[in-house]
Amino acid sequence: MKRSIAILCLLHATVFTQPTSPEHAAREWRITHEKAIIEEFMELLAIPNVASDRENIQRNAALIVRMMEKRGIAARLISSAGANPLVFGELRTPGATRTLVFYAHYDGTPIDPVEWTTPPFEPVLRTRSLEENGTVLRLDAIGKALDPESRLYARSAADDKAPIVALMTALDAIRAAALPLRSNIKFVFDGEEEIGSPNLEKMLAANKDLFAGDLWLVCDAPLYQTRQQSIIFGARGIATFDVTVYGPRVELHSGHYGNWVPNPAMSLARLLVSMKDPATDKVLIEGFYAEVEPLSPREQKAIADAPAVDAALMKDLWLGATDGRPSTLNELIARPSLNIRGMASARVGAAATNIIPASATATFDVRLVKKMTVPRLLSAMRDHIRKQGFHVVETDPTAEIRRSHPRVAKVVLLRGAEAARTSMDLPVSQEVIRVVERVRGKTIALPTMGGQLPLDAMSRAAGAISIIIPIGNHDNNQHSANENLRIQNLWDGIELMAALLAMDVPAATH
Amino acid sequence: MKRSIAILCLLHATVFTQPTSPEHAAREWRITHEKAIIEEFMELLAIPNVASDRENIQRNAALIVRMMEKRGIAARLISSAGANPLVFGELRTPGATRTLVFYAHYDGTPIDPVEWTTPPFEPVLRTRSLEENGTVLRLDAIGKALDPESRLYARSAADDKAPIVALMTALDAIRAAALPLRSNIKFVFDGEEEIGSPNLEKMLAANKDLFAGDLWLVCDAPLYQTRQQSIIFGARGIATFDVTVYGPRVELHSGHYGNWVPNPAMSLARLLVSMKDPATDKVLIEGFYAEVEPLSPREQKAIADAPAVDAALMKDLWLGATDGRPSTLNELIARPSLNIRGMASARVGAAATNIIPASATATFDVRLVKKMTVPRLLSAMRDHIRKQGFHVVETDPTAEIRRSHPRVAKVVLLRGAEAARTSMDLPVSQEVIRVVERVRGKTIALPTMGGQLPLDAMSRAAGAISIIIPIGNHDNNQHSANENLRIQNLWDGIELMAALLAMDVPAATH
Repeated sequence: MKRSIAILCLLHATVFTQPTSPEHAAREWRITHEKAIIEEFMELLAIPNVASDRENIQRNAALIVRMMEKRGIAARLISSAGANPLVFGELRTPGATRTLVFYAHYDGTPIDPVEWTTPPFEPVLRTRSLEENGTVLRLDAIGKALDPESRLYARSAADDKAPIVALMTALDAIRAAALPLRSNIKFVFDGEEEIGSPNLEKMLAANKDLFAGDLWLVCDAPLYQTRQQSIIFGARGIATFDVTVYGPRVELHSGHYGNWVPNPAMSLARLLVSMKDPATDKVLIEGFYAEVEPLSPREQKAIADAPAVDAALMKDLWLGATDGRPSTLNELIARPSLNIRGMASARVGAAATNIIPASATATFDVRLVKKMTVPRLLSAMRDHIRKQGFHVVETDPTAEIRRSHPRVAKVVLLRGAEAARTSMDLPVSQEVIRVVERVRGKTIALPTMGGQLPLDAMSRAAGAISIIIPIGNHDNNQHSANENLRIQNLWDGIELMAALLAMDVPAATH
Repeated sequence: MKRSIAILCLLHATVFTQPTSPEHAAREWRITHEKAIIEEFMELLAIPNVASDRENIQRNAALIVRMMEKRGIAARLISSAGANPLVFGELRTPGATRTLVFYAHYDGTPIDPVEWTTPPFEPVLRTRSLEENGTVLRLDAIGKALDPESRLYARSAADDKAPIVALMTALDAIRAAALPLRSNIKFVFDGEEEIGSPNLEKMLAANKDLFAGDLWLVCDAPLYQTRQQSIIFGARGIATFDVTVYGPRVELHSGHYGNWVPNPAMSLARLLVSMKDPATDKVLIEGFYAEVEPLSPREQKAIADAPAVDAALMKDLWLGATDGRPSTLNELIARPSLNIRGMASARVGAAATNIIPASATATFDVRLVKKMTVPRLLSAMRDHIRKQGFHVVETDPTAEIRRSHPRVAKVVLLRGAEAARTSMDLPVSQEVIRVVERVRGKTIALPTMGGQLPLDAMSRAAGAISIIIPIGNHDNNQHSANENLRIQNLWDGIELMAALLAMDVPAATH
């Protein structure tokens, strides 16, 4: 079955006149196969893919294996106890000395179905975005020329099943045009990226030879806000933690005890305020910026060259001010940050009752840049909290601890991952920029994205040099309801993946 | 049926030798009727009584009417559109020139059944408190001498159905002993106290003659923490409000936008911190203390004379510090207070996601003392928030408002009620203290309780002079799960109510 399809692909190839480039081959192929491409994509999107849903995760992985096998890729699942499988695929190119690894992920963030206009795992095409009142397009109504502004709605339509489909389609096009590959190709599709890839490093390290490669192209993240193509050479790390402070043993009547029993919500507010300078928005935790590796001249220039998006974003996000002025968004996301993800103490609004809360919790994320480490960050955070007069504990404090300290804070690290940044000065970095610009025109190259990707794990466990290649639209509602992919982004992504699959990796990567 | 029961009561009276006081009569009666008293109480407690549960509220009111009619009290429901009924009862005493009004409430706070050891509306007697591992007592096992430390568990066992049952039982005892009453007696049982008696003032004002009285005894609140009897001459008022501050239009990825998009949780924390001096715990809102009526010498002495409970409470509540030092709890609850009831922004802990929240809300209660008004407080609060750089609105701000101000806060008043305090120097105040001390020994008299009661509405609409007479144990879990009444508190309450029912109200009340 596998073999017969491979032969069919070769037959296809003979039908076309040979195009001059893989990206042109990809366009020709796509124009005549739009409906089939969308159908294959929808089949993949219809399988729920929240990382905790083990049964459906297996179904996703199995389908991706079938998609690869159909294309003659040697595909298998790499498993580890308690982990979702990595889907691995390999294409050996006779005579090739170097290996390109394409990474994407097939899991998606949890969904709250009531927030979705149509169910997250029942993919639908719309004529436009929902904000532009796009209406549902029936699949059998798709002709050869799907409107480039139409959008495909489903969880992971953009983040991050789109690159998987783009890569498979690009390979079909290369095969159909009988174009040569110049490197060995590997595919690594992660099933736990949205929960922080907790097992990736272990699984890569346990299969070092299998995952060896000269360059990892990490196909994730959205394009730049101007819709221009971007290439990103790194990702910030992350440390998330909960801080809980305590009031009375139980919630108390605020009439009977208010003014006398310390309020933990106020105590937490004071602690939060101590962490940031309101004038400069700089983090005031001692040592926070001590380990930051400065940006190189090329990196600084890349940030300065990126089109300004701040004013347009402020309008779109209803902001009357931004933090960290006069620095721009692009400058600020290349620096470490401290963010309050959420804050809770008793209840608010109609659910509130006349009580003094028993505790108050804030959940933070700190975005790390290269050279910052999670243990040192956590230690600096604990020291800072101590300096604010708190006794710091790691587990629920006993009655005795609470009675013997005026203020007690529990600090719990939830997750940590370090930053990674590939030098833009490397020959391989310059070659990737050249190939991408050939296909996609003027491209925004940035030293780092603000979010986190498991580049640090790839680097440690597989020695990977990684570069991020996004294909999704910036307004894809990633991680939220009504996630969507703009169809032109998929078409562009297929052409880009074809060019990258066929690229020649420079000899000296370091 | 009603008449025959009234006759039965008179027959009962002839069985006893005449006791010297109503409190002794009450004790004699109670000792021989413990099981019947508990049974009547349980029947009342078995009817759910959350104010919003209109059907069950009507069932409560109807049962209380029957309980009164059984005792020959002229009982009726006072209704008003959209309001739960006031249960009103009246006993005219031939020749009496003055009227005593007993107020209590039959509604209870909302319940979360999962937090209860036994269901809140299936009353059970336990041998001891749950904390002391009390076990369930079967009702048919009750002999003549129920352990005084046994407890009755149910919503409103203490707050505030206990006074209703104590009053009815006390009346039985007075009748059985053929003791005279000296005043006309009225009963007013509120069905909306726990939601702030929003219709009480209107209903009293619409029936001025019906509710006229020389002294209102407000039977609510718990005893002093030493278990000593207390009498309280006032209650703080309250103003509750929500303050919401805004971040981006929707939650945003904290990696892509953190450091640049202002975080509303931090903005709220700064606002909260601006409201209280961390060194003195004084409220920093300009004008907050401007209207406070100072305590009289007698009131100050009363507070100074009350037994110190601070150290024991700190131990029980697991507190390592208190606010407002060196002032004591009793001093502090006679002053205005600002309390954060709850605080919320996005999600915390395992539910947190990597976002910048879109908004943050705190719900406050301000406890008012005499002379402070809700409108002036709200105005001072709004001015304070403006001084912190916020544009203040009362409804959800539009995109344009949010874009054109660096900080926007929505301030919504949820509820307001003013304080009331009856002078401890009045002859009627001194007489109530005298009667209570005769029955209950050394009594803690305090100028005000920290909580709120609708004394202000009673004063404005019915010209009421009010004094609060608590009977419930201080550790009754009021407003929480596992609310309970210590049985000895019920027995003491019956004796106290008998003495008060039979008391002579002094001529000059003002």
